[in-house]
Amino acid sequence: MYEVEMKVRADHEAVESALEAADAEFVDSVVQADTYYDAPHRNFAETDEALRIRREHPPGRDTGTDESADETTKITYKGPLLEAESKSREEYETTVGDAEAVVGIFDGLGFEPAATVRKERAHYRLDGYTVTLDSVDGLGEFVEVETETEDDDIEAAREGARAVLSELNLDPDAQIRTSYLGLLLDDDA
Amino acid sequence: MYEVEMKVRADHEAVESALEAADAEFVDSVVQADTYYDAPHRNFAETDEALRIRREHPPGRDTGTDESADETTKITYKGPLLEAESKSREEYETTVGDAEAVVGIFDGLGFEPAATVRKERAHYRLDGYTVTLDSVDGLGEFVEVETETEDDDIEAAREGARAVLSELNLDPDAQIRTSYLGLLLDDDA
Repeated sequence: MYEVEMKVRADHEAVESALEAADAEFVDSVVQADTYYDAPHRNFAETDEALRIRREHPPGRDTGTDESADETTKITYKGPLLEAESKSREEYETTVGDAEAVVGIFDGLGFEPAATVRKERAHYRLDGYTVTLDSVDGLGEFVEVETETEDDDIEAAREGARAVLSELNLDPDAQIRTSYLGLLLDDDA
Repeated sequence: MYEVEMKVRADHEAVESALEAADAEFVDSVVQADTYYDAPHRNFAETDEALRIRREHPPGRDTGTDESADETTKITYKGPLLEAESKSREEYETTVGDAEAVVGIFDGLGFEPAATVRKERAHYRLDGYTVTLDSVDGLGEFVEVETETEDDDIEAAREGARAVLSELNLDPDAQIRTSYLGLLLDDDA
């Protein structure tokens, strides 16, 4: 399975109206704080790997303010691209019970936090696609349209994603290919 | 708080009789498979650090045979000794939801499994001490006596541990200071 994903900058108020008009189904919303780590023995920017701690909780309070039962933490490792064309890569993810212990383990092993991406996400379903409204701290508002597809249906899935963007009065040609982490680090540069 | 711990080789059948005669309280028993990792950028044997995945489940079946609900997995990092005398060090530990994902993350980052220590442990309480009967794959049967104590009571705690060993007809002077990992790696050498 491959993930087809398109992302554009978009004013959420207008998109929410368009989602309502298109009868999209609201799924849920969540706050995520993703901390990306640098490795002591490799340059992840060069190897195109990533090591991340993701803290997630329902909207309505700040991340990390307490050890609340409704906060979940995951660690994710993304390996180097195995094949450039399909953008396929190894990915491993697991929940962890104690976020602060993971911070201690990474720190002890010499991994250092490079940047943290904080965003509030609202998920909708429309025409078989997931439409995500992201408000990213320091970057602004974005809309992502994505779906999973088989190898031989990638082009059709991409056309479908363009159609969903158009239905929401957004311009598919304004697609941004840089990750939020990349956009944040560019801002710092 | 400091951990005072003494370990000796011991035939479990005789120790179990002595525990019964001493009216020790049985607590629980558990099977542990600890995989210790080498780092790609440091020699943990030299830095005296450790990175471990511990899989634990109730006795009665093999470790890792299925993704059973009663198997728990933890990752633990032990930092270098901060002070030789007290053997104090940083230690971070957390439960993880998916053991195989952690194996994938460690492997992806270049950490390699050095050795796995498998043991069945039975815990008892006696005179304020925890008495642990360990059957270690490839090494045999051991008994550990341990307690936690304040800084200024270490000597008294150590004397108490010797007394517990004597009560179990074991020789405190036969104490083994090498870890099970160290004993296993020595055997390999």
